[in-house]
Amino acid sequence: MNTVYAVGLGPGSEEYMTRQAWQALDKCDIICGYTVYVDLVRDIFPDKEMFSTPMMKEIDRCRWAIEKAEEGFNVAMVCSGDSGVYGMATLLLEIAENHENIEIEVVPGVTAALSGGAVLGAPISHDFCVISLSDLLTPWELIEKRLDCAGQGDFAMAIYNPRSKKREDYLKKACEILLKSRTPETICGWVKNIGREGQIYEIMTLRELADEKYKDVDMFTTVFIGNSATRRSGNRMLTPRGYDRKCEL
Amino acid sequence: MNTVYAVGLGPGSEEYMTRQAWQALDKCDIICGYTVYVDLVRDIFPDKEMFSTPMMKEIDRCRWAIEKAEEGFNVAMVCSGDSGVYGMATLLLEIAENHENIEIEVVPGVTAALSGGAVLGAPISHDFCVISLSDLLTPWELIEKRLDCAGQGDFAMAIYNPRSKKREDYLKKACEILLKSRTPETICGWVKNIGREGQIYEIMTLRELADEKYKDVDMFTTVFIGNSATRRSGNRMLTPRGYDRKCEL
Repeated sequence: MNTVYAVGLGPGSEEYMTRQAWQALDKCDIICGYTVYVDLVRDIFPDKEMFSTPMMKEIDRCRWAIEKAEEGFNVAMVCSGDSGVYGMATLLLEIAENHENIEIEVVPGVTAALSGGAVLGAPISHDFCVISLSDLLTPWELIEKRLDCAGQGDFAMAIYNPRSKKREDYLKKACEILLKSRTPETICGWVKNIGREGQIYEIMTLRELADEKYKDVDMFTTVFIGNSATRRSGNRMLTPRGYDRKCEL
Repeated sequence: MNTVYAVGLGPGSEEYMTRQAWQALDKCDIICGYTVYVDLVRDIFPDKEMFSTPMMKEIDRCRWAIEKAEEGFNVAMVCSGDSGVYGMATLLLEIAENHENIEIEVVPGVTAALSGGAVLGAPISHDFCVISLSDLLTPWELIEKRLDCAGQGDFAMAIYNPRSKKREDYLKKACEILLKSRTPETICGWVKNIGREGQIYEIMTLRELADEKYKDVDMFTTVFIGNSATRRSGNRMLTPRGYDRKCEL
């Protein structure tokens, strides 16, 4: 039986890929995915057949991969970060439901909540939520509801797709919702171009984030919201796990 | 300046480690950590100095690593999964605050929400929460509050430390809280010994999970709670991203 591997590459360069991901790419016949992600692995496997499609063509891409597997090839569908978290794994599983002669194998990867968190220090070292502000596939009302619930639950948060040209004010709106349950001094941070050229980050308060002082925040940026115990330590953002309540550190 | 690397190993064997993690272990002088995690890398670096301490000795372990760095060594502190998510990164950063002559570098890894999710299919492919049921460092009331908020927000969830001998009924209690906002038919799953020998998993409803039909669930198990759109597909658990609302798959 032929396999389509849904492969999470991690944030960028080969350095962040697991051996399992590398091996899946190595043993497949064709690598496919969104152009930018295919380009990330082109140099590692120069002799491999590659098939890339532009953004928004996710369904066509998955159908193509499944067809190729039915024709007798093993195919790897590459995703940045993890292949599950807002990745292609679930769409492949959905489309493959009526194709019993192929197998979908999900290969996880380091998602931006983890790789961006490592750049900032340890912002999500306690209970946390991951929320995307993209309303392309999710009604905005549900995103607002989730932000509100996450705020009330004092979760640390990683926010994906925080701002685009079409959705310039979404991060501001999100911060205003969080300010209903969090203090303006809540420590936040963002990391842009994680693990790639031009990686930058900033640490600030929720009030400053809401005031849109950070025009650099875009679709290539992951935003972190601390919980009530999160603090700034020099140029790092850290969320204590609670050892400090048990004894002196 | 000497460095203490907080290194996330991923779920188990070398296969799940990133190259960045491997390189950090390779270039350090000493590898330290909880016995079980140090044992995971002993065979990969047989000539390296190893220092392991039993569980619950986290603060001593971090102090020891920082002292060794001050003595002139580069030290790797290994964690299973990610080094940030319930890992040692934040404790190292806290203890290192008064040691300006050493550096802490956080190396992320594939946390159980991602590696266990890949085993089940794609249970957390949309907005999700990670919640630990361990109340060693977190008041149980706060854990209850977070479960309640996550339930109301229709988040998919990964639950860490779901049950131990001392906390036999915590998962049942958690399910009962979730049943206030979720239907009994909500699709759930669990994976035990992710990426290790004896890996097993099950998919079931929230009602079945609450009824404690699954005695295998222990501290080496990660539990997944679906959102209202999550469904079972054969032997997989998948949370659609919403493409099915836009067009026919």
